Amino acid sequence: MADPKKTTIVLFSGDYDKAMAAYIIANGAAAYDHDVTIFHTFWGLNALRLDSPISAQKGFLEKMFGRMMPRGADKMGLSKMNFAGMGPKMIKHVIKKHNAMTLPQLIEMANEQNIKLVACTMTMDLLGLQEKELMDGIDYAGVAAYLGDASEGNVNLFI
Amino acid sequence: MADPKKTTIVLFSGDYDKAMAAYIIANGAAAYDHDVTIFHTFWGLNALRLDSPISAQKGFLEKMFGRMMPRGADKMGLSKMNFAGMGPKMIKHVIKKHNAMTLPQLIEMANEQNIKLVACTMTMDLLGLQEKELMDGIDYAGVAAYLGDASEGNVNLFI
Amino acid sequence: MADPKKTTIVLFSGDYDKAMAAYIIANGAAAYDHDVTIFHTFWGLNALRLDSPISAQKGFLEKMFGRMMPRGADKMGLSKMNFAGMGPKMIKHVIKKHNAMTLPQLIEMANEQNIKLVACTMTMDLLGLQEKELMDGIDYAGVAAYLGDASEGNVNLFI
Repeated sequence: MADPKKTTIVLFSGDYDKAMAAYIIANGAAAYDHDVTIFHTFWGLNALRLDSPISAQKGFLEKMFGRMMPRGADKMGLSKMNFAGMGPKMIKHVIKKHNAMTLPQLIEMANEQNIKLVACTMTMDLLGLQEKELMDGIDYAGVAAYLGDASEGNVNLFI
Repeated sequence: MADPKKTTIVLFSGDYDKAMAAYIIANGAAAYDHDVTIFHTFWGLNALRLDSPISAQKGFLEKMFGRMMPRGADKMGLSKMNFAGMGPKMIKHVIKKHNAMTLPQLIEMANEQNIKLVACTMTMDLLGLQEKELMDGIDYAGVAAYLGDASEGNVNLFI
Repeated sequence: MADPKKTTIVLFSGDYDKAMAAYIIANGAAAYDHDVTIFHTFWGLNALRLDSPISAQKGFLEKMFGRMMPRGADKMGLSKMNFAGMGPKMIKHVIKKHNAMTLPQLIEMANEQNIKLVACTMTMDLLGLQEKELMDGIDYAGVAAYLGDASEGNVNLFI
């Protein structure tokens, strides 16, 4: 039997719409039996953040970043036409109307399909994010692990 | 004879400059005999929109999106230094001065070079765009078709 | 011996954080013996710009672009939470605190690792950037050269 195809996505963006695109492609690829990895770096880490505030020892700048960044997928803004939060509300409204999946639902589906969700440890450090602030069951790795996956990948995207 | 190389581009962005980059790479790849597909999703769909208002039955939110999004390639803004529309004017001015091609010209060339232009049906639904609002001669498909192309691709980009 | 793997990155973005991600991936790939090329186009060219003003004969629009665009990697803004320059200061502060590398240091390391840094001649023309305004030791090429590299690439990203 042939090796499964591989899809790797670097999710750099913290925008709701871009993260949706990443997770739609990833879930599609998993449905076609690709091995799929989403490597969350910089603002993309926010998609993995827990919703409730977690008490954590942090320096001042890390606290600032922590407060200014959205807590989890549902709080993220749009890359275009954000309109101080109106855009995401509109998108979520049409998603429901069309029976499509919201970003949190897409992430849950990715988990069920065994897509490997990785948090970039180097940027977690920079932004002051700790493991207890991110969802359970994800992997932690650096750029070396990403490159190991990507250099075998059939579809590699940076989003 | 060897199979032709394949280039696939997901055009997610609705920015004039990013769409230019996508179409320049696509036209270059076609000139080197690659099979080329541009898969337009989310705001990238605006590059395929017709210029004139089309009467279409739509819900309220779909009408709102329709009004707020640019009608076609020529109306798109820049990702940087848009300055309320001044940036695109400057870019178009220097394009003419340097005898380079505008975005609408690049799209026309893509058509002549048989680049496959695809509109993502799922995001058309979300944004309330209908086939009669988009240019003639394009394809309609979903993420499965994209993945079929991309998993054979030599160059796959998300723009 | 097997051919080295190839990584190619199109750096379109002029954002400090996105350029960091590009150079971190590039330096990682070079450390794993990939042949690496970063093709700087549009606003990504600003990462290669010299810091001091260079006197150059230019038309009016080219002068305007020249003034409005950041002179070099250290002057670039963030894609998110730029806050009129506060964001980049915060990021640089945490980079130092965590003994990570700033963007100018990452670019220097890329040079030492013989990563091929290419400036896109077509967009230099459009934005009115001249060779004497960019750093020494870089290559100049167009989309054809990029496609030649990318169509052999194992990891191709657009950032």
